[in-house]
Amino acid sequence: MGARNGLTGAALGARLLRPRSVALVGVSDDLAKTAARPLHYLRRSAFAGRVYPVNPNRDTVQGEKAWPSVESLPEVPDHAYIVAPTEAALAAVEQCGRAGVPVVTVLAAGFGESGPAGEAREARLRGIVAATGVRVVGPSSLGVVNVHERLLLTANAAFAEPELPAGSTFVASHSGSLIGALVSRGKARGLGFAGLVSVGNEVDLSIGEICAATLDDPAVGGYLLFLETMRHADRLREFALAAAARGKPVIAYKLGRSAAAAELAVSHTGALAGEDDVAGAFLRDCGIARVETIDALIEGLPLVARLPLARRGHAPRVGVVTTTGGGAAMVVDQLGVRGIAVQGPSAETLERLAQAKVAVAPGRIVDLTLAGTRYEVMKGALDVLLAAPEFDLVVAVAGSSARYQPQLAVRPVIDSAGGGKPLAAFVVPEAPQALAMLAEGGVPAFRTPESCADAIAAAFSRHEPRAAPPRRSGVTGGGGRLMDELEAYALLHRLDIAHAPARAFPVDRVDGAGLAYPVAVKVLSADIPHKTDVGGVVLGIRDADALADAVAQIAREVPAHRPGAKVERVLVQAMARGVGEALVGYRVDPQVGPVVMLAAGGVLTEIYRDRSLRLAPVDLETAREMIAEVKAFRALAGYRGKPAGDLEALAHAVVGLSQLAIVADPVVIEAEMNPVIVREAGQGIVAVDALVKVR
Amino acid sequence: MGARNGLTGAALGARLLRPRSVALVGVSDDLAKTAARPLHYLRRSAFAGRVYPVNPNRDTVQGEKAWPSVESLPEVPDHAYIVAPTEAALAAVEQCGRAGVPVVTVLAAGFGESGPAGEAREARLRGIVAATGVRVVGPSSLGVVNVHERLLLTANAAFAEPELPAGSTFVASHSGSLIGALVSRGKARGLGFAGLVSVGNEVDLSIGEICAATLDDPAVGGYLLFLETMRHADRLREFALAAAARGKPVIAYKLGRSAAAAELAVSHTGALAGEDDVAGAFLRDCGIARVETIDALIEGLPLVARLPLARRGHAPRVGVVTTTGGGAAMVVDQLGVRGIAVQGPSAETLERLAQAKVAVAPGRIVDLTLAGTRYEVMKGALDVLLAAPEFDLVVAVAGSSARYQPQLAVRPVIDSAGGGKPLAAFVVPEAPQALAMLAEGGVPAFRTPESCADAIAAAFSRHEPRAAPPRRSGVTGGGGRLMDELEAYALLHRLDIAHAPARAFPVDRVDGAGLAYPVAVKVLSADIPHKTDVGGVVLGIRDADALADAVAQIAREVPAHRPGAKVERVLVQAMARGVGEALVGYRVDPQVGPVVMLAAGGVLTEIYRDRSLRLAPVDLETAREMIAEVKAFRALAGYRGKPAGDLEALAHAVVGLSQLAIVADPVVIEAEMNPVIVREAGQGIVAVDALVKVR
Repeated sequence: MGARNGLTGAALGARLLRPRSVALVGVSDDLAKTAARPLHYLRRSAFAGRVYPVNPNRDTVQGEKAWPSVESLPEVPDHAYIVAPTEAALAAVEQCGRAGVPVVTVLAAGFGESGPAGEAREARLRGIVAATGVRVVGPSSLGVVNVHERLLLTANAAFAEPELPAGSTFVASHSGSLIGALVSRGKARGLGFAGLVSVGNEVDLSIGEICAATLDDPAVGGYLLFLETMRHADRLREFALAAAARGKPVIAYKLGRSAAAAELAVSHTGALAGEDDVAGAFLRDCGIARVETIDALIEGLPLVARLPLARRGHAPRVGVVTTTGGGAAMVVDQLGVRGIAVQGPSAETLERLAQAKVAVAPGRIVDLTLAGTRYEVMKGALDVLLAAPEFDLVVAVAGSSARYQPQLAVRPVIDSAGGGKPLAAFVVPEAPQALAMLAEGGVPAFRTPESCADAIAAAFSRHEPRAAPPRRSGVTGGGGRLMDELEAYALLHRLDIAHAPARAFPVDRVDGAGLAYPVAVKVLSADIPHKTDVGGVVLGIRDADALADAVAQIAREVPAHRPGAKVERVLVQAMARGVGEALVGYRVDPQVGPVVMLAAGGVLTEIYRDRSLRLAPVDLETAREMIAEVKAFRALAGYRGKPAGDLEALAHAVVGLSQLAIVADPVVIEAEMNPVIVREAGQGIVAVDALVKVR
Repeated sequence: MGARNGLTGAALGARLLRPRSVALVGVSDDLAKTAARPLHYLRRSAFAGRVYPVNPNRDTVQGEKAWPSVESLPEVPDHAYIVAPTEAALAAVEQCGRAGVPVVTVLAAGFGESGPAGEAREARLRGIVAATGVRVVGPSSLGVVNVHERLLLTANAAFAEPELPAGSTFVASHSGSLIGALVSRGKARGLGFAGLVSVGNEVDLSIGEICAATLDDPAVGGYLLFLETMRHADRLREFALAAAARGKPVIAYKLGRSAAAAELAVSHTGALAGEDDVAGAFLRDCGIARVETIDALIEGLPLVARLPLARRGHAPRVGVVTTTGGGAAMVVDQLGVRGIAVQGPSAETLERLAQAKVAVAPGRIVDLTLAGTRYEVMKGALDVLLAAPEFDLVVAVAGSSARYQPQLAVRPVIDSAGGGKPLAAFVVPEAPQALAMLAEGGVPAFRTPESCADAIAAAFSRHEPRAAPPRRSGVTGGGGRLMDELEAYALLHRLDIAHAPARAFPVDRVDGAGLAYPVAVKVLSADIPHKTDVGGVVLGIRDADALADAVAQIAREVPAHRPGAKVERVLVQAMARGVGEALVGYRVDPQVGPVVMLAAGGVLTEIYRDRSLRLAPVDLETAREMIAEVKAFRALAGYRGKPAGDLEALAHAVVGLSQLAIVADPVVIEAEMNPVIVREAGQGIVAVDALVKVR
């Protein structure tokens, strides 16, 4: 991506968001029309740059001179917003490109999403980009807004909003309407924005590139993304890494959580790792905090900015102080649902509270009761709790007084903030003034217990972003050739993953003497990936006679199930016993690249969708995290006195398979070990089946 | 419960919520004090009844004459709010009782929750109630409010609110502070209340009795409950049944979802069915819609009132129409997460939309796009969708125009409502005016996609409430005696539940001849519930010699594991094979009574907490629902070509065990069949172990 001579980075950002001159192509004189809005907004906001209405059909638009074309303008504008209908828009992009306009934003729909005619238009648009170097936002973009610059280059009805509060958050959204909703919802709680871009279909400029263009803008302190899909993942990762390097946090809401995404694939890995799961793993890998609620998206960034990155093996510890038990209990409950335990103060902290004359009954919540609705009580309690080593975060829950006496209820919270320990607030009543005061005072504040807990959970699970592994272009799930099981084992061996000893025989010359029984026998063929389904596997064979019978059975059954299939060779393999099983999968996702998946295997794993997914390769610590995320493996961790499995060896196997992401030869598209037998602790694991697809 | 001569029902409701005269005992002259608030509020609201400040230490309070005691008043007040400190409050309740005051509400804390001294006070309070017939709200009650009557008998700071909007919803809450939050949050979106009661500790009047007292109040159209715990379940059920009979819906939020509640019990049923799960089953049994978010609690009742009760075997069908794709997609996603599928219009409906000149691309959402922000387009689309037979509910999603032109965006929605088909709205921007207009216009409206989906899911899962089964007093989990396995099987036999054939032998006279091998042998003793843990079980015995060995082993192992345990008898049982296993449990919960639980059994069931719970007894339809709720049983429903299990026979076994709730002899406290072997479809089930505890 990226047009050949097109602008990128800060130079792009300057024209995109701080243009000295803009053209509005196709702008309407009729204020009732969407295409009239940008000019109306720019004039009302008193944008300081030069604005050129372009409309070949009129002499004036909204009382201003209208220019017949972009070429006729007295200068080449920095940025053109094209609000003309589809075909005219395409012509206008071409004009702009030829005229040397560096950035255009296109409102019209009717491109790639609209069947063959739309696809042809999209191809034409790409051609213009490639030929002229013009950078395009959209199509289907509701526009670009820079609040600080009063640049309202948008057709979104929401920007009729009389006063847009300015802030330091930059918004990029696949949904154009959402940028409007974010503005009004943010305003209602005292949260403003630096800029907002409706990125549309990302035919040229992707959400990642657009955000990256603002990275060095001192007015931008963090990013809020509304994602409908996952496109141009590499650009998004580049941006996320650069943002992290500058200490600018990124929060995202992504649609698609409910998609069943159980499309059939050659391996189970496909069914278990749906599109949204892969996107989730990708966002995590990029250090982007993903929230699940719209309120947390709006309110969460200040908290994300203040919480440290997740520390491995460290469960976050949250303390809660309140004047209203019921309100605090809602937050505790919602945190608990998300796996975050609220804990009470230590004996030392209780002692210090007593010294500060704060009366508190021991318990999980520091409940000051109604008596705590006094500045000095709340301030005293917060000062002690924020100094206590047992908390990573303190949440202050404010009751009704936050609505009626915000100075009283909220001032001590603001005055306590700013120390080393993060502090957040949940306000139980409807109290927009208190929320705005808290926002102003730098305290992350939440209007529902759900958004509070959602943002806390998302912020605590944010990891250091990771550079993309070297990516081999074109390595996706399509096409490819299957290895037979013996080849697959050889590959596992290179990755230092043990498999059960196995020996191949021509089907008519199986020698059962000298084998260590019991064994399994399986048809050996790269053409038959699902051996069990075609009668190609016999397990638990106890002697040579039984082996001969089994081989004969396989030779009979497989062609019966799959006419035309030839059984030429069989694999005889030692039966492995263990205390549990696992499934380890690897595949190359077309958007985000190599991923590794771990599950317990078996029918229940699919039913519960109990698995852990990461971008590959992973290190040992990450593999251990993955094991901890798969609930079924608790049964192998000494659950209720059962023997523990060798989960450490399993972690090594996960690391091993994930290394396929950096193996140059062969180029593996998809791999799966199912099952991996997990033996008792200290005795390792062995793969007893493997499926590998190479380019 | 219920004092001997105390008021109940409508007579109670009249004194509690429409008193002609009230006394404020312990009211303060100092407006900064909590105890000053009720008088201040009552005067400011211009409450029409007579108000008597009672304060023995002052001649006047807040400029009014103060009476020295309740006895000194010129009349016996209908309702006294006692805002004095704990000890004085107790004395005041006694005075009120003797003076014949029918209802008192007590603010003070310091009763049952406060250790032995508090318990003694609570006992004294109960004594007063029993002796005098006074009815008590609280203690720890922040008060009683009737908005229509301007009765602000409350110490809650939130009622400083200048104008309380009136509505038809009656609120009862364990949390006193929450009633204030509900008022301000409701007001912000145009939702008012009929009355609000902080029920406190429910030492006398329970939440159920208080609500029941308002059932015939025509100003009350529905109920909103905030529950911190589950007390007086019988009263709550009585109320819920009566409310349903009057067509008055009930919505509830209950704290405690996150409580692990994995306390050890004699059976697994205890560990799997935590307190909150039992409460959830109880609320469901009462036909109470339980929501999970605070916004849905506030916004959900109008929707609950309009949606029909859940129909068995009918998955709800929701249609979505929008002018903003991104906003609608959030609702679709959130519904999907809750298992509710949004579906697109049928071909016929698309045809009718076209006839109505509404242009829509086929898809899951009816997306009118920006072009649909016109009255006639949205109205036309809604009229067609609301007439379409394929939808149980239509959700209209309004975009930015809801904020700037609510008449345009929201009027067609209001004008379309009122037909037979339920209609709800989600408003994407911050748009309090649109929300208020929708509320006024009778359209259930939601401010977040999460609350919208939460309320829809809760409303659709509401069942016809059920009368309580006959309850035997004192039948709870404590104490009791275990049956031995043979006795337990005899009981199962009476319930028409099959078990694997089993025969008891004295341990020294086991006759292995003539048995149908393979068999299992187990120690048979009512003193040893967990036989496997003490080496008391040997499975898969193939002949008489092995049986003799196994018996000897058991005779040796059991006393070794449990010194003092005597092995006198063993049970020899046919080994049963099937395609799956289940766990069916029964126990009598101290609050809600008999419950029946179904799980798949095994370690993973506990890890995933994959189970279904209902109040017992259940009918066959309910048992089938329970099977459908346990995810693991999908593996027995012909999943991926595996043999299907006899789930119908399992349903009958669930029904059978649940009948213990109405078996008079023996009185069973707890029972568990674990495992039940599920055979292939048509071949039934057999219990192969059973644990029964009787009074």
